[in-house]
Amino acid sequence: MPSYTAPTKDIQYVLHDVLNISGSDIPGYSDLEPEFTEAILDAAGQLASEVIAPLNVVGDKEGCTFENGVITTPTGFKEAFEQVKEGGWPGLDLPEEFGGQGLPYLMSTAVGEMFSGANQAFTMYQGLTHGATSAILVHGTDQQKATYLPKMTSCEWTGTMNLTEPHCGTDLGLMRTKAEPQADGSYKISGQKIFISAGDHDMSSNVIHLVLAKIVGGPEGIKGVSLFIVPKFVVDEDGNPGAKNGVSVGSIEEKMGIHGNSTCVMNYDEATGYLLGDMHKGMRAMFTMMNEARLGVGMQGLAQAEAAYQNAVIYAKDRLQGRAVTGVANPDGPADPLIVHPDIRRNLMDQKSFIEGARAFMLWGAQLIDQAHRSEDKDADGLISLMTPVLKGFLTDKGYEATVNAQQVYGGHGYIEEWGMSQFTRDARIAMIYEGANGVQALDLVGRKLAQDGGKHVMAFFEMVKSFCKENGAGDMAEFVNPLKAASKDLQGAGMFFMQNGMKNPNAALSGSYDFMHLFGYVCLGLMWARMAKVSLTALENGTDDPEFHQNKLTTARYYMARQLPMTGTLLKRIESGADPVMTLPADAF
Amino acid sequence: MPSYTAPTKDIQYVLHDVLNISGSDIPGYSDLEPEFTEAILDAAGQLASEVIAPLNVVGDKEGCTFENGVITTPTGFKEAFEQVKEGGWPGLDLPEEFGGQGLPYLMSTAVGEMFSGANQAFTMYQGLTHGATSAILVHGTDQQKATYLPKMTSCEWTGTMNLTEPHCGTDLGLMRTKAEPQADGSYKISGQKIFISAGDHDMSSNVIHLVLAKIVGGPEGIKGVSLFIVPKFVVDEDGNPGAKNGVSVGSIEEKMGIHGNSTCVMNYDEATGYLLGDMHKGMRAMFTMMNEARLGVGMQGLAQAEAAYQNAVIYAKDRLQGRAVTGVANPDGPADPLIVHPDIRRNLMDQKSFIEGARAFMLWGAQLIDQAHRSEDKDADGLISLMTPVLKGFLTDKGYEATVNAQQVYGGHGYIEEWGMSQFTRDARIAMIYEGANGVQALDLVGRKLAQDGGKHVMAFFEMVKSFCKENGAGDMAEFVNPLKAASKDLQGAGMFFMQNGMKNPNAALSGSYDFMHLFGYVCLGLMWARMAKVSLTALENGTDDPEFHQNKLTTARYYMARQLPMTGTLLKRIESGADPVMTLPADAF
Repeated sequence: MPSYTAPTKDIQYVLHDVLNISGSDIPGYSDLEPEFTEAILDAAGQLASEVIAPLNVVGDKEGCTFENGVITTPTGFKEAFEQVKEGGWPGLDLPEEFGGQGLPYLMSTAVGEMFSGANQAFTMYQGLTHGATSAILVHGTDQQKATYLPKMTSCEWTGTMNLTEPHCGTDLGLMRTKAEPQADGSYKISGQKIFISAGDHDMSSNVIHLVLAKIVGGPEGIKGVSLFIVPKFVVDEDGNPGAKNGVSVGSIEEKMGIHGNSTCVMNYDEATGYLLGDMHKGMRAMFTMMNEARLGVGMQGLAQAEAAYQNAVIYAKDRLQGRAVTGVANPDGPADPLIVHPDIRRNLMDQKSFIEGARAFMLWGAQLIDQAHRSEDKDADGLISLMTPVLKGFLTDKGYEATVNAQQVYGGHGYIEEWGMSQFTRDARIAMIYEGANGVQALDLVGRKLAQDGGKHVMAFFEMVKSFCKENGAGDMAEFVNPLKAASKDLQGAGMFFMQNGMKNPNAALSGSYDFMHLFGYVCLGLMWARMAKVSLTALENGTDDPEFHQNKLTTARYYMARQLPMTGTLLKRIESGADPVMTLPADAF
Repeated sequence: MPSYTAPTKDIQYVLHDVLNISGSDIPGYSDLEPEFTEAILDAAGQLASEVIAPLNVVGDKEGCTFENGVITTPTGFKEAFEQVKEGGWPGLDLPEEFGGQGLPYLMSTAVGEMFSGANQAFTMYQGLTHGATSAILVHGTDQQKATYLPKMTSCEWTGTMNLTEPHCGTDLGLMRTKAEPQADGSYKISGQKIFISAGDHDMSSNVIHLVLAKIVGGPEGIKGVSLFIVPKFVVDEDGNPGAKNGVSVGSIEEKMGIHGNSTCVMNYDEATGYLLGDMHKGMRAMFTMMNEARLGVGMQGLAQAEAAYQNAVIYAKDRLQGRAVTGVANPDGPADPLIVHPDIRRNLMDQKSFIEGARAFMLWGAQLIDQAHRSEDKDADGLISLMTPVLKGFLTDKGYEATVNAQQVYGGHGYIEEWGMSQFTRDARIAMIYEGANGVQALDLVGRKLAQDGGKHVMAFFEMVKSFCKENGAGDMAEFVNPLKAASKDLQGAGMFFMQNGMKNPNAALSGSYDFMHLFGYVCLGLMWARMAKVSLTALENGTDDPEFHQNKLTTARYYMARQLPMTGTLLKRIESGADPVMTLPADAF
């Protein structure tokens, strides 16, 4: 069975050595001294590796069962969820007034990577609740907050997001679920929603559904969509779950992976719902959840890659097969361990250089969110808004690729369910799809985010890379800064191409949107690696007491620069080929 | 449920327009007139789409069951297998003296793509039999041939390949299965083999296992390995299955995919076996099967990509979501079909340009095999030997990628088993692993094949590309030839790098072996697309009666040149970074 060890040391390195968080002036950050964050990460890591991770395979094998209208989660999930609640983990970054710990989002992201890496399907129950809680926090009335937030902060009640219907996912304007206004100000919600993660289960005493629906008589299409709170049990006057609402599970979906999560078809039959936020502004309210969810999904890509990588490394050191081409490495054994073979190392270094770069990118993104919210910094808000589709799309694509590579290290054993490597790829696959398929992320990036506020944020990003390169381009840093410069030039070249061609023909830009999302991702990780190289070079110059750690960072940075970052050249060429190759073939010739 | 339509028209185009097979002087090719091959392909295509394909999902859902020592294949498999046998398909390219049709291997490859695309797990039963039959054909005594080949040619008896043991796959020198010589010239075989595809089942009256084992007292390691015929039922004097042999199924493996195939743990307990080929030369005999099997596996990559692509296209035309950015395309509907969106087209064109290029490459490879065997052409043999790891590794990697892309077109529906898109990726995944994991293919290519016969065959390949470019570089062909030239230059640059650095440090070459395998693959498909462009340009000049078909070929060729082939630049950069980035990190730092 696969194991999971929380990457506490590497997270601490990013938080303190790279991001220097306790030196930041973001409100709440000055408390985040290394000892404090380490204590949190150690506790979370222990829970992740000892309690949550052992249930990963159980969840995959058993799945959720749906009998007589009741969903049962896999053996052990309920008990583990109680431990998560008892530890106060679901409310780590939620307001203290509702029972949370009030820590920065950054810390919840770091802990989230551990929980997700240990067991993605399990961790989604609290992840979805967190998203729903955030939406109520931002858009709820005082009464709604008082009713739902204390119970949702603790995960005594869990939450869901209900967007998709059988005939519409990305294009929510086609939605058919209806909301009929009632005399008492509530609504009767009717319709069917599909792919509802954590839609129903046996681990909480109520499920608070956030449901998109169209108020009868409202505007057509997306402009008539509103968001509603629809509890499984209507909350009574004492604040307890009362009468069963008109919401029921139609079925649970049979999926490729994340079997431990109950993905439901939800049927709403004149269910009582309460408007959340403004009438007909449901999309805006939903996007409060979606943006957070997208970052969380990007994090899942990283987390599954880390978990799969750890096991691939164990296997590569343990499995004896063949001899090193440069001479026997393990003379006492019948063969050498896999890790002596260059192509196995190539595979593992691909994973490692992605994972550590992605972790830095992810935590930097989380810091930007705190900066945007806690410091009300509009520039940080613009930058993270720009990078959200990159974090989601690039990290899940590359994270999935990493799980496939990790599986490959096992040879035939990687294909057998017994070893658990197949589960990592099957679970990681969903992250490229949900919360907006990655093609939709690319569209959001190129069609919307690039030009936002007159292109201000992408220019700020270019400027940030440029000044980093200018300040650090000499001496030992040159080998890291030069490739970053070249890659950043490719990214700017792509932006230029879009500007020059996209106005005349939007397809010229959109045909390259996916490549651009990846190009942006490679440059972001390149920036992270250059920053980490700077940090580790400085640490070595200053006589760190852990020189191996920093030497290994430099080696991994070199790998990234030499073998990952050159991808930007190919991506730019693809982009510059424009619309014709993509748009010319008649639809019936496919 | 997914559907499958045999790509007869495209195969005919490759066979006749591109390869001009009936004009070839390879013995047996002059019979392959377009009408004749079309009749074969039509019949095979009908069987594939109407009989074999509908069982694909059934096989995935039911899997094989193992109860009381007996394996039962999924509902319908047995009846369909009878139809395959009745049609004489398993013996299509096997000798007439044993009941085969004696057609070229090329035709069996073309038909094989259809059967595999329709149902990979099902088609493996005859695929493994074919491999075992080939080994007996080449290495068997006259008596062995007479005993086994007629029944195996018809698939009345099926065959298997037994290589892997729990502790060894790639490194077969570690093998523990033993063969004890008996007075009557037979052997007693004892040991355990794992991952035995089609290891046992209810669709044939006997199973002929080809088993690698070490003769007791023979040389250590790989030099002591011999190959044995071990029938499930020992064949009696009348040539019928007689006494049960000492071979039994230990269990069937739970796998990520190809559930319809019975992948077995096989236990040999003093089973009667007969030496096949020379003593201690088992690897050579096994490679007769392996090389053929590797081409067959490359073909599976293509086949699953084609099947997944077809369904993605259907969905992309059917599913209404969003509006075209350049204006409404489907004014009578609530939204436009997915296929109007540039990123969906980018995704589909990636698949299409890979598939059609790969098909031409595969069929060209099959033609080279016929040329090597039927014309005893040593140059053809050297070339296909060089390209076999490329066909296996590149086509299965890119084929898998294509199935993942096809799944992505479906959004959330791609993740639900109900739609069948998950199965294509789960089934395609194994092809990157079995018959030598793709990293081993890369090692074979760079460590062995490149330098074979003094590098003669790779030089011949370069020369072939060069002279094609020279002869066709002008006029309308320039847009296809120029990118091919550039890519070929990258490939030669990589070869040069290996020559200059690999002697001093083999790791400098092996660190780039995987990239080289892909680089070679991109150039091969580039050559195929340039050839197809030439054919289709000529057809258009000559006033073909199907101008759309040829125009579409040119459009797809342009896509490949503009958006796939530029990958060679990145791959060359990776290769030229040499051993250091890959080999520097200490093993305990992973």
